[in-house]
Amino acid sequence: MKKQYISDAVIRRLPRYYRYLDELHSRGVVRISSSTLGRRMGVTASQIRQDLSCFGEFGQQGYGYNIIELRAEIGRILGVNEPRRLIVLGAGHLGHALLQNFDFAQGGFLLDTAFDVSPALIGRSVNGVTIHALGDLDAYCAVNHPAVAVLTVPRAAAQELAERLVALGVRGLWNFTNVELSVDETVFVENVHFADSLLTLSYRISKKAGVERT
Amino acid sequence: MKKQYISDAVIRRLPRYYRYLDELHSRGVVRISSSTLGRRMGVTASQIRQDLSCFGEFGQQGYGYNIIELRAEIGRILGVNEPRRLIVLGAGHLGHALLQNFDFAQGGFLLDTAFDVSPALIGRSVNGVTIHALGDLDAYCAVNHPAVAVLTVPRAAAQELAERLVALGVRGLWNFTNVELSVDETVFVENVHFADSLLTLSYRISKKAGVERT
Repeated sequence: MKKQYISDAVIRRLPRYYRYLDELHSRGVVRISSSTLGRRMGVTASQIRQDLSCFGEFGQQGYGYNIIELRAEIGRILGVNEPRRLIVLGAGHLGHALLQNFDFAQGGFLLDTAFDVSPALIGRSVNGVTIHALGDLDAYCAVNHPAVAVLTVPRAAAQELAERLVALGVRGLWNFTNVELSVDETVFVENVHFADSLLTLSYRISKKAGVERT
Repeated sequence: MKKQYISDAVIRRLPRYYRYLDELHSRGVVRISSSTLGRRMGVTASQIRQDLSCFGEFGQQGYGYNIIELRAEIGRILGVNEPRRLIVLGAGHLGHALLQNFDFAQGGFLLDTAFDVSPALIGRSVNGVTIHALGDLDAYCAVNHPAVAVLTVPRAAAQELAERLVALGVRGLWNFTNVELSVDETVFVENVHFADSLLTLSYRISKKAGVERT
């Protein structure tokens, strides 16, 4: 595989390819052309071929992609077949919702422990994940070396906790706190900004309203 | 303002500009150049100038952008100064987390009512928002005409509820259910796919691990 710079836009499309291929596979589809896949995803066929060419040779001219093979290959690129341990910091409503409904295992993540400061939550278990006191974090990390931490704590606690997690060896932060975290550049922060998504919707309905009025 | 096709990528960057300008404004910054703004956001200065040129003339050659003005203008483009009513469907953990922590008003949304089917939740109030029985939805919409509905209901309920909301006049769905909704094309669906975000992080830490091993 040739090494080359891979743009952020390409990286962000990979999980979407993975998700669409997953859905097609679950519906029993075996092969798909880049033009059909592109139509479903709202990108061009050439965009798909170009994106995938960053990672190697996929598909066969005129035959399209084998869905199981392409899905497995994209999963490998995304690292889902490398088991990594993940912990959840903050078991309030959002943390609880993720513990209860989100399929961490599908992304290759092992999750058995969450942390919180609330005595009402410590010791409880959600969907097989035990909630521990935040005071136990250092001891847990020393033994289990989690690679990723999910931050669903109050804003005021976010930066200090992020620094502590990085010092404990965490290499990725999935950040729901809406705080722009400042951490060592060798650590990856993936921010979930709900507002960006809602404002995109706001733009679309507002333009639509404008069109209707004229 | 010239009318032109505006790409999805540009539309998705607008809320980010808005968020960064907001942060700069709250820190007392008055002007910023496109190159400084771009460096902070990880895009090029020419990208910013090109994005904004889709909507009109902003900034002054050599003087950069006035942050308050540019923020207000982008807010106007995003529709945040047009008050629109929003309802939340599903007041479980995720719905509760949004009601409690998310600032809907900042996006120009009026929110006073959520709906759920659980007798334990109906009649309760979260952050000033009253939770009503789902049976009251039609009557509420007939009077209040909500423009946007937030879907934080179980997967199995999503499609039917989406169709009902569209029939009741809702024009935008903010969809957290992970179901690909099939609705009339005049309605906008903005999907929040947590998995896409986590898989992006998975990719980055996995590549980093690869680099370290070599």
